[in-house]
Amino acid sequence: MDRLPIDLTLQEIADIFSGQVMGSTDTRIEGLSTLELAQPGDLAFFSMSRYSSQLHSTQASAVIVSQKLIHLCPERIRKIVYPNPLEAFMKLIRRLAPSDNPYAHSEIMADEKGRSISKMADVSEAAQIASYVFVGAHAKVGAGTFVGPNVVIGPYAEVGRDCYIHPGCVIGPHCIIGNGVILQPGVVVGSDGFGYYQEGGVHVKIPHLGAVVIEDDVEIGANTAIDRAVLGNTLIQKGVKIDNLVQIAHNVKIGNGALIVAQTGIAGSSQVGNYAVLGGQVGVVGHIRVGDGVRMAAGSALSKSIEKKGDYAGRPAMPIDVWRKSIVAVRYLTDNIKEIMKDIKHGKRTK
Amino acid sequence: MDRLPIDLTLQEIADIFSGQVMGSTDTRIEGLSTLELAQPGDLAFFSMSRYSSQLHSTQASAVIVSQKLIHLCPERIRKIVYPNPLEAFMKLIRRLAPSDNPYAHSEIMADEKGRSISKMADVSEAAQIASYVFVGAHAKVGAGTFVGPNVVIGPYAEVGRDCYIHPGCVIGPHCIIGNGVILQPGVVVGSDGFGYYQEGGVHVKIPHLGAVVIEDDVEIGANTAIDRAVLGNTLIQKGVKIDNLVQIAHNVKIGNGALIVAQTGIAGSSQVGNYAVLGGQVGVVGHIRVGDGVRMAAGSALSKSIEKKGDYAGRPAMPIDVWRKSIVAVRYLTDNIKEIMKDIKHGKRTK
Amino acid sequence: MDRLPIDLTLQEIADIFSGQVMGSTDTRIEGLSTLELAQPGDLAFFSMSRYSSQLHSTQASAVIVSQKLIHLCPERIRKIVYPNPLEAFMKLIRRLAPSDNPYAHSEIMADEKGRSISKMADVSEAAQIASYVFVGAHAKVGAGTFVGPNVVIGPYAEVGRDCYIHPGCVIGPHCIIGNGVILQPGVVVGSDGFGYYQEGGVHVKIPHLGAVVIEDDVEIGANTAIDRAVLGNTLIQKGVKIDNLVQIAHNVKIGNGALIVAQTGIAGSSQVGNYAVLGGQVGVVGHIRVGDGVRMAAGSALSKSIEKKGDYAGRPAMPIDVWRKSIVAVRYLTDNIKEIMKDIKHGKRTK
Repeated sequence: MDRLPIDLTLQEIADIFSGQVMGSTDTRIEGLSTLELAQPGDLAFFSMSRYSSQLHSTQASAVIVSQKLIHLCPERIRKIVYPNPLEAFMKLIRRLAPSDNPYAHSEIMADEKGRSISKMADVSEAAQIASYVFVGAHAKVGAGTFVGPNVVIGPYAEVGRDCYIHPGCVIGPHCIIGNGVILQPGVVVGSDGFGYYQEGGVHVKIPHLGAVVIEDDVEIGANTAIDRAVLGNTLIQKGVKIDNLVQIAHNVKIGNGALIVAQTGIAGSSQVGNYAVLGGQVGVVGHIRVGDGVRMAAGSALSKSIEKKGDYAGRPAMPIDVWRKSIVAVRYLTDNIKEIMKDIKHGKRTK
Repeated sequence: MDRLPIDLTLQEIADIFSGQVMGSTDTRIEGLSTLELAQPGDLAFFSMSRYSSQLHSTQASAVIVSQKLIHLCPERIRKIVYPNPLEAFMKLIRRLAPSDNPYAHSEIMADEKGRSISKMADVSEAAQIASYVFVGAHAKVGAGTFVGPNVVIGPYAEVGRDCYIHPGCVIGPHCIIGNGVILQPGVVVGSDGFGYYQEGGVHVKIPHLGAVVIEDDVEIGANTAIDRAVLGNTLIQKGVKIDNLVQIAHNVKIGNGALIVAQTGIAGSSQVGNYAVLGGQVGVVGHIRVGDGVRMAAGSALSKSIEKKGDYAGRPAMPIDVWRKSIVAVRYLTDNIKEIMKDIKHGKRTK
Repeated sequence: MDRLPIDLTLQEIADIFSGQVMGSTDTRIEGLSTLELAQPGDLAFFSMSRYSSQLHSTQASAVIVSQKLIHLCPERIRKIVYPNPLEAFMKLIRRLAPSDNPYAHSEIMADEKGRSISKMADVSEAAQIASYVFVGAHAKVGAGTFVGPNVVIGPYAEVGRDCYIHPGCVIGPHCIIGNGVILQPGVVVGSDGFGYYQEGGVHVKIPHLGAVVIEDDVEIGANTAIDRAVLGNTLIQKGVKIDNLVQIAHNVKIGNGALIVAQTGIAGSSQVGNYAVLGGQVGVVGHIRVGDGVRMAAGSALSKSIEKKGDYAGRPAMPIDVWRKSIVAVRYLTDNIKEIMKDIKHGKRTK
């Protein structure tokens, strides 16, 4: 979901995490969301100055903000002040999110072919469902789609037309798969993201209320895992191809036609541009952007955004020609280290 | 399969990708294959000069070749000229490969013990098949083999004698598992390789018509993925031991008794020699060879073939003693960088 | 199990691997175990001098030890001398361990809801078990626990109260899961560790007789694999959170509240301290210790123990400020390599 519906006053909300309401305390809040996804009446949070442009485009009626960043907030938005707005928001989500199990109301009654398809599911007669497939309540499967043995399609999940879901995949509740999508065996779509906040030495789990959306013509490799978003969706856009054993964290967005080679990992909320290519075993930290058409060599790692199209390599990543020179330079250093050390020791190189 | 049977003239084939036939255009072609696997009457492709020795041993009757490399082709082989022979070949495969779903004709009828074993499968009475196992049409399971709960054995797949297939594994269609093989839980054998060619900005999937062959006494770790070949087989030879979460790409060959530690990835068409040892989190790029008895330290990466037996480390990999020196050298550089910079700035080191 | 019960004399044991008994040869041995886990009457092995303190606290009655280290053994402990004590011990385990299949005596009879729950299992009526779940003989599932579709709970495994086991997980025989534990889809708990010894060019498998113990309030990410111990347990302590596609090898111990980010791998017998944080794609070699509160940056690798709390980065890992300097230093070297080379070549820097 994009927003968690609630019905509380600003003061009632602030009391949950001991925040301080600025101005009128009895404004009613109808939902919790992000600056990007909020509707009028919603509360969001603002915690990184580099996202300040979102404050101007947001429809949120109120935000949680620290004293330090409050000057960036437009007048029209109501404020709750708290030193760590993200933590406060996560506490709210944790407290107010429904805790019911989406699988709870699924019927589980195997048919004579060994399938367990909810009577409340909408499975096309032109879909082919193999043995030991579970299709949860309110899930949909489109025409021409093949669902292999031992696949789980969670409640409210949707699989489009002409997909091929290989054996042993798990498509979590509420996740959406487009048309012509191929999932190789063992793919997990919609695991919870890795998100916790600390409270008295305990890591408290942040509920992941969002889902995963996979657009048309995507292919995903064996045993790859794609986490669902906290709010909104982890998004794999049209024509993306992902190899085996790749990790896609919560709230990541992969642009049209991007290629992600095996064992690469992309951390939370990062974005990969259209037709970008990430070689095998690449690492991308959270909250950054890999630009359109950027090509990262196998084994490289990115800790800052790269926008400029081109080839990059190394850990941390640099333009590939610089990286090649650095390999040569280190080799030269290694081969001549004794001379260089002698030099320094003899005082030749220090003034 | 090793070759895709077809029945077309050279000209009909060339028309598919707008290639130019040299000499007689009405020669009939009976199959598409690689230089290595082709039979007389087959068409293959030749795109890398370093594989030119295959041109002399091949049984192929015709090849697709670029103008640039045509001089390397023996007289006796007919030619279709095209700038990118691999792409042309993939287009042919894509156009001419059968698109039927191997699971389509499997019966799916659970028995009272909750197994779905095709009547057309050949399962030894001395094999033990647990709950929720799917065994496809024409698949075989040998005597003394245990197949754990929730395992999928695809149509035409074969599992030998005295194997132990832990729960949740997927063995894809046509894959062959020898005797005494152990698959830990969640292993995927026979996922499609990661192969596409671009056509108008779209990544077009290359059908993977080959399979995976796993020889006797191999053990494979939890959630490891082994891709099937485009043509021919991905091959895991006798006595190989592979750890958890390893990626073995299409057309890779792992030699007898090699050890592959967890989270290592081997890219397409690369070969690992007999009794080689790849430590954890190693990366091997495509189309190279790791020689017999080569030992790669954990975390190392290989982008060129290494033939000489010995210990290697680093990214890119180098002999381990050189790597150790390089670590010391960089540390020395780091600790003395101010002195070195001063030197340069003061003009002492530039003439 | 912590020890393998046997009933043999020292001489009968030594004969299995051609070891030499010191002193009385007819002492009866009641079990094989490690120095740490042994009970009086057991035989253990001693092979690394840095573990010599365990020789003084052990309850083992006898050890296998090399001639070289025999002087470290207290008088009271009987000895079998052999050059490679670990290998000898593994041969004993291999020879004497029971080879029965734990799944063999499970009934496999699907109920009308498509579950296969052994009559000898102890599943709480307040647990919810979804379709195509296998629960083996003598396994236990506690109240309030949800077990998703296609999960396998092996014989003698135990899952506590209020757990959420997502679809497609495999919990191996004898593994123990505490209360409030969450397993994301595709988690494998209790795969065999990667352990072999060589005998005439053949890698002989070391039986893994131990299990995995996961304490309360742990969460484990999608497609992560946790291997069982050879003897004793791989231990994930209270409140640990592990992300997707992580590899935890046999006999590893992860301390309370530690965080392990995606695609990290921890090799055999290593220990991670309380509240340590391992970023994504970190590598930790075997038999070392990551101290309490140590924080390893994403992509770093550890080949020696680090005890001191703080932030570390790099391959091999160093204090993060040193690593940052080394990146700058190598960049400086790269940018000025021509000057430095010229210098050396012109004989300016050699005496």
